[in-house]
Amino acid sequence: MAQVNRRIVLASRPQGGISVANFRLEEVPVEAPGEGEVLVRHRFLSLDPYMRMRMNDVKSYVPPQVLDAVMVGGTVGEVVASRNPRFAPGDVVAGGGGWQEFGLSDGKMLRKVDRSLPLEAYLGPAGMPGVTAWHGVFNIIEPKAGETILVSAAAGAVGSVVGQLVKALGARAVGVAGGPDKCRHAVEVLGFDACVDYRGDLVGQLAKATPDGIDGIFENVGGAVMDAGIKQINVFGRIALCGLVSGGYDATPIAIADATPLLTQRVMLKGFILSDHADVFPKALPDLAARVASGAIKWHRTVAQGIAAAPSAFIGMLSGANLGKQLVDLG
Amino acid sequence: MAQVNRRIVLASRPQGGISVANFRLEEVPVEAPGEGEVLVRHRFLSLDPYMRMRMNDVKSYVPPQVLDAVMVGGTVGEVVASRNPRFAPGDVVAGGGGWQEFGLSDGKMLRKVDRSLPLEAYLGPAGMPGVTAWHGVFNIIEPKAGETILVSAAAGAVGSVVGQLVKALGARAVGVAGGPDKCRHAVEVLGFDACVDYRGDLVGQLAKATPDGIDGIFENVGGAVMDAGIKQINVFGRIALCGLVSGGYDATPIAIADATPLLTQRVMLKGFILSDHADVFPKALPDLAARVASGAIKWHRTVAQGIAAAPSAFIGMLSGANLGKQLVDLG
Repeated sequence: MAQVNRRIVLASRPQGGISVANFRLEEVPVEAPGEGEVLVRHRFLSLDPYMRMRMNDVKSYVPPQVLDAVMVGGTVGEVVASRNPRFAPGDVVAGGGGWQEFGLSDGKMLRKVDRSLPLEAYLGPAGMPGVTAWHGVFNIIEPKAGETILVSAAAGAVGSVVGQLVKALGARAVGVAGGPDKCRHAVEVLGFDACVDYRGDLVGQLAKATPDGIDGIFENVGGAVMDAGIKQINVFGRIALCGLVSGGYDATPIAIADATPLLTQRVMLKGFILSDHADVFPKALPDLAARVASGAIKWHRTVAQGIAAAPSAFIGMLSGANLGKQLVDLG
Repeated sequence: MAQVNRRIVLASRPQGGISVANFRLEEVPVEAPGEGEVLVRHRFLSLDPYMRMRMNDVKSYVPPQVLDAVMVGGTVGEVVASRNPRFAPGDVVAGGGGWQEFGLSDGKMLRKVDRSLPLEAYLGPAGMPGVTAWHGVFNIIEPKAGETILVSAAAGAVGSVVGQLVKALGARAVGVAGGPDKCRHAVEVLGFDACVDYRGDLVGQLAKATPDGIDGIFENVGGAVMDAGIKQINVFGRIALCGLVSGGYDATPIAIADATPLLTQRVMLKGFILSDHADVFPKALPDLAARVASGAIKWHRTVAQGIAAAPSAFIGMLSGANLGKQLVDLG
């Protein structure tokens, strides 16, 4: 009997709020690789905010997630069969295998990784979220020693790396996160200089935490969090706009309450999507892997068990239920 | 009897809306130049939106306008007495002489201009407003041939030059202005490809005028005008944020209704104030003067008569009563 591949497809597009009913679990036979193909058994699946944007059928940076097709997503796993000369059974590979237990690939978007780091790291600080942080820090914000950089979703997969890179450059890292546990984690484990709980007195606490103002913002959240940062921004401030998860990507507009400081402080704001910046990966990945291996970058993961748990874990992540990188362990 | 210098000082800071009561006309004796100084008889005074920002006592890019001091402003005039070897009576000079008929200067910020252009041009397209346009176009938006560039306050001193530079680069210039007369002027005289009256169906008309979306925005206005532009912005759009006059600089917040396209379209937004970019003047001024002299840049002026008319002309300009460059003819 053929092996079974369990997978999650997009059953319907969210109207207003997302729910598990937008997803469907399917069981299909595992297919054998064709000429040039590789069959990968996924060990971990990455859940990331960008996926929510792709679920909407609107003009965006990539075509929307196709209905009834496997949800797109980053994976790390082992090659179990190969008809591609670049890969052999037993190879550990990272790629975009999607929300399923097995994936077929032509190998073009697969990269071999070694076992020196835990496999999950290649979906976190030594993978796409890490490179996202790296690009925003080194190519957009460019923090100088002594500057203050604000990082929203500071305890998340991207924000946690941003803060540690900022510190490594000799700048001050101030985080914003939801709840005292995340804030404590940001300061005590990740080394942020301060962290403000946005559920409290965000504006007042942030002003206290940034007595010299804010020189750069790595923005993952938008809304009130971004507004509080813009209020404190200094002359020639830089904003790397990486995410706007506060709106849940539900097609709700995310306002900026006051654009005046963008003018009077001569701010540079840059929206970015990592997929535009393929050239950054070869530079950033070895640097990040080395920092993770040496312990200079610390990281945390929140792991859901089994592919069936992916939809609820994803919805939880969108509302901030996770600490660090949200993964699904596929066994 | 000493000659009289009539001047306008800031009597009080606007609370909420600005009014002529915030200004006071004074008559003082004209002073003779001291060692190294130049006495200039001002012929024209420039009225510009930045002055309104300086009237507020808030953290901004320059110290606020001092109470009871002469209002700061650009002027062009003739040297009538000089104890500075660089200047002689009869020289025509542009500088920041302020809202007054005569000004004393140490000469550092005075530049000699020739009489090949009408004097007012040195306060308009061949002066600060022209350089503002030039910087935003060449150093921020960098329009490519065939792209669509949106210009708000298209019939104003800055916007009118922006549109003509954009056209000279082979891009499409779409203006936004207040009322059919300004829109007609933008298209028929200045050569904009289209102009949308923001008092009408702004969003609908703008969508019609930009069927291929918008690649760059030169923003002078903010609010609903900027929101309509952001709605249409294309991937890798650039926004030169030069002004937010829609709020009247009354310390009213100017919101951006939806920041989502800044992320999904990977927009670069840059707030700028020309005084940061002294290096641009030597490059831009000769280029602009040549374009004005050849007729490649057309321009219009709205001229108030006499220093006493400056406050009401200034308030009118803030609400868009002018067409083209707002000046005061000092006789």
